[in-house]
Amino acid sequence: MIEQLRAQLGPAALVTGAEMHGYLQEWRGTYTSDALAVVLPGSVADVQTIVRLASEHDVSLVPQGGNTGLVGGAVANPTQLIVNLTRLNRIRSLDRDNASMLVEAGCTLDIARQAAAAEGLLLALDLSSAGSCQIGGNVSTNAGGVNVLRYGSIRQQVLGLEVVTASGDVFDATQALRKNNSGYDLKQLFIGAEGTLGIVTAVHLCLFAQPQQRTVMWVSVPDVQAVVHCFGLLRERFSGNVSAFELIPDIAVQFVTQHMSGMRRVSDARGVHALIELHDVSPDARPLQGVVAHMAAQYPAFDAVIATSEAQAQMMWGLRHHISDAQRCEGASVKHDIALPISQIAPFIESVLPEIERLVTGIRPVIFGHIGDGNLHFNLSQPVGVAADAFRAHTVALNDLVNNAVIAYGGTVSAEHGIGLQKRAWLERQVGGSGVAMMRAIKQALDPEHRFNPGKIL
Amino acid sequence: MIEQLRAQLGPAALVTGAEMHGYLQEWRGTYTSDALAVVLPGSVADVQTIVRLASEHDVSLVPQGGNTGLVGGAVANPTQLIVNLTRLNRIRSLDRDNASMLVEAGCTLDIARQAAAAEGLLLALDLSSAGSCQIGGNVSTNAGGVNVLRYGSIRQQVLGLEVVTASGDVFDATQALRKNNSGYDLKQLFIGAEGTLGIVTAVHLCLFAQPQQRTVMWVSVPDVQAVVHCFGLLRERFSGNVSAFELIPDIAVQFVTQHMSGMRRVSDARGVHALIELHDVSPDARPLQGVVAHMAAQYPAFDAVIATSEAQAQMMWGLRHHISDAQRCEGASVKHDIALPISQIAPFIESVLPEIERLVTGIRPVIFGHIGDGNLHFNLSQPVGVAADAFRAHTVALNDLVNNAVIAYGGTVSAEHGIGLQKRAWLERQVGGSGVAMMRAIKQALDPEHRFNPGKIL
Repeated sequence: MIEQLRAQLGPAALVTGAEMHGYLQEWRGTYTSDALAVVLPGSVADVQTIVRLASEHDVSLVPQGGNTGLVGGAVANPTQLIVNLTRLNRIRSLDRDNASMLVEAGCTLDIARQAAAAEGLLLALDLSSAGSCQIGGNVSTNAGGVNVLRYGSIRQQVLGLEVVTASGDVFDATQALRKNNSGYDLKQLFIGAEGTLGIVTAVHLCLFAQPQQRTVMWVSVPDVQAVVHCFGLLRERFSGNVSAFELIPDIAVQFVTQHMSGMRRVSDARGVHALIELHDVSPDARPLQGVVAHMAAQYPAFDAVIATSEAQAQMMWGLRHHISDAQRCEGASVKHDIALPISQIAPFIESVLPEIERLVTGIRPVIFGHIGDGNLHFNLSQPVGVAADAFRAHTVALNDLVNNAVIAYGGTVSAEHGIGLQKRAWLERQVGGSGVAMMRAIKQALDPEHRFNPGKIL
Repeated sequence: MIEQLRAQLGPAALVTGAEMHGYLQEWRGTYTSDALAVVLPGSVADVQTIVRLASEHDVSLVPQGGNTGLVGGAVANPTQLIVNLTRLNRIRSLDRDNASMLVEAGCTLDIARQAAAAEGLLLALDLSSAGSCQIGGNVSTNAGGVNVLRYGSIRQQVLGLEVVTASGDVFDATQALRKNNSGYDLKQLFIGAEGTLGIVTAVHLCLFAQPQQRTVMWVSVPDVQAVVHCFGLLRERFSGNVSAFELIPDIAVQFVTQHMSGMRRVSDARGVHALIELHDVSPDARPLQGVVAHMAAQYPAFDAVIATSEAQAQMMWGLRHHISDAQRCEGASVKHDIALPISQIAPFIESVLPEIERLVTGIRPVIFGHIGDGNLHFNLSQPVGVAADAFRAHTVALNDLVNNAVIAYGGTVSAEHGIGLQKRAWLERQVGGSGVAMMRAIKQALDPEHRFNPGKIL
C-alpha cells in the first residue's frame, strides 16, 4: 500500500521510518504514536486516493493537523496510517462582502487569521496554539479559546465544509451561507467528531468586523462568587461586547510572576482576579464606571485596573497566557478541562475543594479559565516537597472526584479539548446510554468499516 | 391503539373525528392533513408511551407544534397519528446567573419570551408567528427570524435538548452548557430535522441581556447593490450590534400603504429601502453619522430617517411585517425562501429578474427579507388583470428558474422554512448525492422503523 501511495501521490507525500518522528509526539507529551507511515496529501484528490487505497487494503486512517491536541485524538498505532493535512493549506478564496473565507484544512490558524486581517476582517477563533494548530483540527475538535463569549466556538463560525467520506466521495457543503435549512445539517456532525467520521479538507469560515476599540481590565475580588457577580453585571450592561472574561486565582499570578521573566503583578490586591476584554466599549463609558462603582461598594477588597496602554493590556494577557508554563515549574499537576452552568461554578468549587484537600494534603489548586462561558481549567498542582510520582499516584482518584462532581453539578468533563483516548471512560457517564448508542449508530452509518480514527471517542 | 392511548393517557389527550379540524390545516392553507387521531401528551412519559404503542401497532407519528410551518412538515395522512405537543408547555426553570431557560416543547415563543423578559433577559428568537409557534417546532425547523444577524438562528441559542427517541427512551442532553465537547454533538441532528429523528420534548435555551438602547432607521437607496454596500459599512463599524438589516422594495411599501390601515410612508424616497435596527448604539453616535454621510456622498438619491419615537420605529417595522398580508391583496403569488452569499445577492437578482419577466410579462417581483444574513423572500406577485389560476400555471416554471439560479449562485432553496413535503424534489440538487445518502443513513440509524414523520425531508 505504501508503494501504491508513493506511486500515486509522489514521493514528497510519504514519510516513513525514523523521519516520522515529528508526527508521533502529541504536544503535551502524554501520548506517543507509532504508525505504518505518515502520508501528506497535497490535494483533495490525494485524500480520496488515500481513503480508497485504505479501504482496499483494510488499513485504518488517523487524520492529523498541527498535532496540538491534548487528549490523544491524533495518535496512531503501528497498523495505522497517519494522514497529516499540512500540505493542504491554501486559502482558496476570501469574500469581503460576504465576510467569509474558504480555507483548506492544513492552513494554520495564524496564517488564516493574518489573511483575514489583511482584508480588514477578523477570524474570531484564537488559541494559544494558533501558530501550529490547523483549521481542520480546529473544526474536528470544535475549538474554543478566548473569544467564545462574543463569537462562539468554531462551530458557530463554520458556514460550510468539504469532507472526504468513507466511500472516498467528496461531500461538498462549502456554500458560504448564514441560513440554510436543507435537511439534516450534516456539517454539524463532522465538527467535533475528532476525525472519526471523515476527513475534513476545507472549511468556509464566517469572518467579523475588526473591533474598533478594545478595553482590557483587571479586576480583583475576594472570591469566585464575586467574580461571577461581576461577570453578570458586565453581561447585563454590555451584552455581546464582553469578548473575554477570564478567572485567574492569585496562586496563578504568584506562579507566573515568579517563573516567567518580565512578568509582574498588575495590582497588589490578592484574592481572586478576572481579566476582562470589552470590544467597542470605551474605558470611559459611564456604564463601565457604574459597574466598577457598584462592585467597589459591595466588596471592600475590590480593585480594578483599566489598561491605559497596549503594553499594560499585554501584561494582563501575559499573566493569563503563561499560567500553564509557570505551573509546569511547580512540579507535577493533574488537569481537568471542565465546564459548568455559570451559576454552579462557585457552589461546585466550594463543594469539591475540601474533598480534594482531604485526599491530598497540601495540594495546590490552580483553577483558571474562561469563566464567562463556564469553562474552567481545573488544574491541581502537587504539594511542595513531595515527589512528583507520589503525587501522580493520586491521578485516578482525583479524576474520579472532580469528574463525578462535575457531572453531579450539571457540567461536562470535556469542555473544549474533546474525548480522544483520554476521556473515553467518562463518555457514557456524560452522555448516557442512549447518547452512546446513538453515537455508535451514527459511526456505523457513516463509517461502516471503521476506517477513520477507530478507538477515538467511542 | 386509540383505545389503549385513551386508557393510558386519559381522555383529554385524544382528539378524533371532526374535532381534529383545528390540527389539520397548515397556517398558509397549502396543505391539509387527515389523521388516525391527534394525541396531546401531557408529560414526557406520555410521549414515551405513544412511541412504544406506535411501535407495537406499527403506526407512524407526525410531531406537531403550533402548526405555523410553511412547507408541509407537520402534515399527516389517514394512517398516521399527529402528536401535538401543545400540552407539554411548562417553563421548567430559568437560571438568571447562567442566562438560560429550560422550556418544554409546547410552550409558545411569546410565552417563553415573556418569561425571559420578566427576569430582565432576552430570548433572542423572534418571528411574526410568535403568538402561535412553539419552541419544539422552532427547534425542529431551526427557526430564524429578524434577529439572526446578531443572535443567530435558534441552533445558536440551544444549549441543550431532551428528545424521545425511536426506542422510546429519553435522550437527556439538557445541560445548560456553553462549551461541551463530549463526542458527537447529537443535539445538532435534532435541530432542523423537522421531527423525522425523534420528538423534542424540552429545550434549554441561552438568553441574552436586554439591549439598553435600540436605534431603528430607514434608509432609501437607488438599488440592491447600494443596500448591500450600506450593510457592509454598518457591519464594519458596528459589528454584532447590527441586529436587523431588512431589504424592502418600494413595491412592498406601495402594497402595505395601500392595503393596510394606518400604514404610511416613512420617506418620500423611492428606489429600494433598508430597515435597520442597531442595539446599544446611540442614534447620535459619530460612526453612525459617518456612515450616513458616506452613503449620501456616494448616492445622490440617498435618504435616511432615524426613528425619533417608539411610534415611528413601530411604523418602520410595520411596513416590514405587513408585506405578506398586503401582498395577498394583490392576487396570487409564487414564493421562494432562499439565501445567497451576501456578495451574490445583487448579481443574482440582476441575472434572474429579466428571465422571470420574459417568462411572465407584467409579473411583479416583491423581493424582501433578511438581507443581512443573505436570506431573501423572493416572492413574485401576479401581473395586474390576469386570472390567478393562469398565473399559478407558471408555478413550476418559476420555481425551476429561481431555484436553478439560486443553486448556480451558491445559494440555498430553503433558507429558513425547511424542506418538509414542498421542497423534497430539490434536496438532492441542493446537497448532492453523497449528502442525501448520508441523510438516509442517519435516518436509518436513528429511526430504523421510520416511525417519525416519514416522507418529510427524504
